[in-house]
Amino acid sequence: MSLSEFDIIARYFAQATPGREDVVLGIGDDAAVIEPPAGQQLVVAIDTLVAGVHFPLDTEPYDIGWKALAVNLSDLAAMGAEPAWLTLALTLEHNDEDWLAAFSRGLADLAGQYGLQLVGGDTTRGPLTITVQVAGYLPPGQALTRQGAAPGDEIWVSGTLGDAALGLRLMQGELDASSSASEELCRRLNRPQPRLALGRALRGMASSCIDISDGLLADLGHLCAAADCGAGLQYADLPLSSAARQLIATDPGLGELPLIGGDDYELCFTAPASQHAAIRSLVTQLDCPLTCIGQIESEHGIRCQEQDGRTRNVSGHGYRHFNESN
Amino acid sequence: MSLSEFDIIARYFAQATPGREDVVLGIGDDAAVIEPPAGQQLVVAIDTLVAGVHFPLDTEPYDIGWKALAVNLSDLAAMGAEPAWLTLALTLEHNDEDWLAAFSRGLADLAGQYGLQLVGGDTTRGPLTITVQVAGYLPPGQALTRQGAAPGDEIWVSGTLGDAALGLRLMQGELDASSSASEELCRRLNRPQPRLALGRALRGMASSCIDISDGLLADLGHLCAAADCGAGLQYADLPLSSAARQLIATDPGLGELPLIGGDDYELCFTAPASQHAAIRSLVTQLDCPLTCIGQIESEHGIRCQEQDGRTRNVSGHGYRHFNESN
Repeated sequence: MSLSEFDIIARYFAQATPGREDVVLGIGDDAAVIEPPAGQQLVVAIDTLVAGVHFPLDTEPYDIGWKALAVNLSDLAAMGAEPAWLTLALTLEHNDEDWLAAFSRGLADLAGQYGLQLVGGDTTRGPLTITVQVAGYLPPGQALTRQGAAPGDEIWVSGTLGDAALGLRLMQGELDASSSASEELCRRLNRPQPRLALGRALRGMASSCIDISDGLLADLGHLCAAADCGAGLQYADLPLSSAARQLIATDPGLGELPLIGGDDYELCFTAPASQHAAIRSLVTQLDCPLTCIGQIESEHGIRCQEQDGRTRNVSGHGYRHFNESN
Repeated sequence: MSLSEFDIIARYFAQATPGREDVVLGIGDDAAVIEPPAGQQLVVAIDTLVAGVHFPLDTEPYDIGWKALAVNLSDLAAMGAEPAWLTLALTLEHNDEDWLAAFSRGLADLAGQYGLQLVGGDTTRGPLTITVQVAGYLPPGQALTRQGAAPGDEIWVSGTLGDAALGLRLMQGELDASSSASEELCRRLNRPQPRLALGRALRGMASSCIDISDGLLADLGHLCAAADCGAGLQYADLPLSSAARQLIATDPGLGELPLIGGDDYELCFTAPASQHAAIRSLVTQLDCPLTCIGQIESEHGIRCQEQDGRTRNVSGHGYRHFNESN
């Protein structure tokens, strides 16, 4: 059976997500009409996933739908915003209905968790590419930005680091692990949970914030660059999952992944030391692991005290799509 | 020389478009922050262009940048909205700097015409795909939608029809024309001019409105479906450019293109006959050709009175990306 573009939107997406009061006109016209709540700022993020680049070709369509939204929600989390609605641009090789049903379910399940409405989209034919734009709200002046860290500020991260990069290697057959460890790490890769509650809680506490999509060093590097500062880290303080800890113990070469592995979608933020206890209390309030891993320093560059006691200058490069020479 | 994703954004896009007062935080953070004007609704459209599907592979990069924005502005025009800002998701095979410079210039030139700011984006590596989301503002309750036509309403179109479809055939070498006709028709294909002033002027006058992206019959079909009505057209009334008229005279088989050819990005709208004179006066006020081509009828389907005097039922299908069976 063949489905036209209009059928696809109607069947799989029009009713998939919850309705919202601020959405005056949703899917089905030339554009959507939104009535933003009075006195709120609008926060907008856009991210694209390309098959074979941002996820392995054999990724489950449910997970692709989930992740396409999750990476955008992670950007909103990093701003401290409350997500509200999204648009979807879906480019597909062909209209496989099973694929579409699973993809839309993954996207809608995550959207439903946060009461997000899909208000518009475009479906086109071509190599599988998914662009989601998500919008949310924020009280004026409350945005957490990349700018604002100062020497002496503590550096925090949520959750654990390096899991998604290990999950990718497991999916690609480059590593072996127990089935439970493998499942946990692949889930971290394929179903990231955006730290939205944490982002909102950090308004007024964090001096700067970013989500870790390209790896800790790359993303912390952005906070340092925006502040014209550097950073000192203690490797031993990096939060690792037990699955990651086991794999790294077996193959020490994997030990750089918590520093440079992408796709964790945790938050990395800075805050004055005076906020330490307040931040610490969020761990139980939000049921969200938070770890202080170092401090902002006036000297440029990122220095990491390794487990052998030596301090190394670590170049702040995570995954950059165009780093390869062409 | 190799450019990273960050360099691309900074070099070609960050300063390319005008700054706006409602943009609190633009390119360079996890998300953009916008302060929508009080008492206005937000109107949002998203559209993707895929290389080889939505434009020939040898299209000039300037034109690709222009068109990626123009097709979205056309959606805002169809809603009667005033455009304000955009985001860009750009997937590129490789980072050819000449290509990027020309692409960003095409996009920025059109954005500059309307004072639009690029507030965020994502660049990724993969098959050339461009997704633009554009947002604008509208007084509450003033949106022109697809719904609202009633039997007896007149059907109007702006500009001329079929030019872009002829331009495509010329670019693909399937047709010959004089160089001036060819240039004019290819320009209609590659540099559509969104009818923004017309859309705003039609607020409160038009009963329904859509932009012609998939062809007159397909798009008028959406207005009819939303109104649970049909339509009667006079083929002889369809507005044709002199270049199109010449080509159709030479090859009558091309005569269906004004009905089914896509990519014209004109507006098709309906209005009560009582608005006829007011709409007619917009032609000189806005320097915008407007033609009454028929009327809404209670009987479903679209009937077209052909030049031989016969009335034909014309099926309302323009270009649908997934119509081919797979």
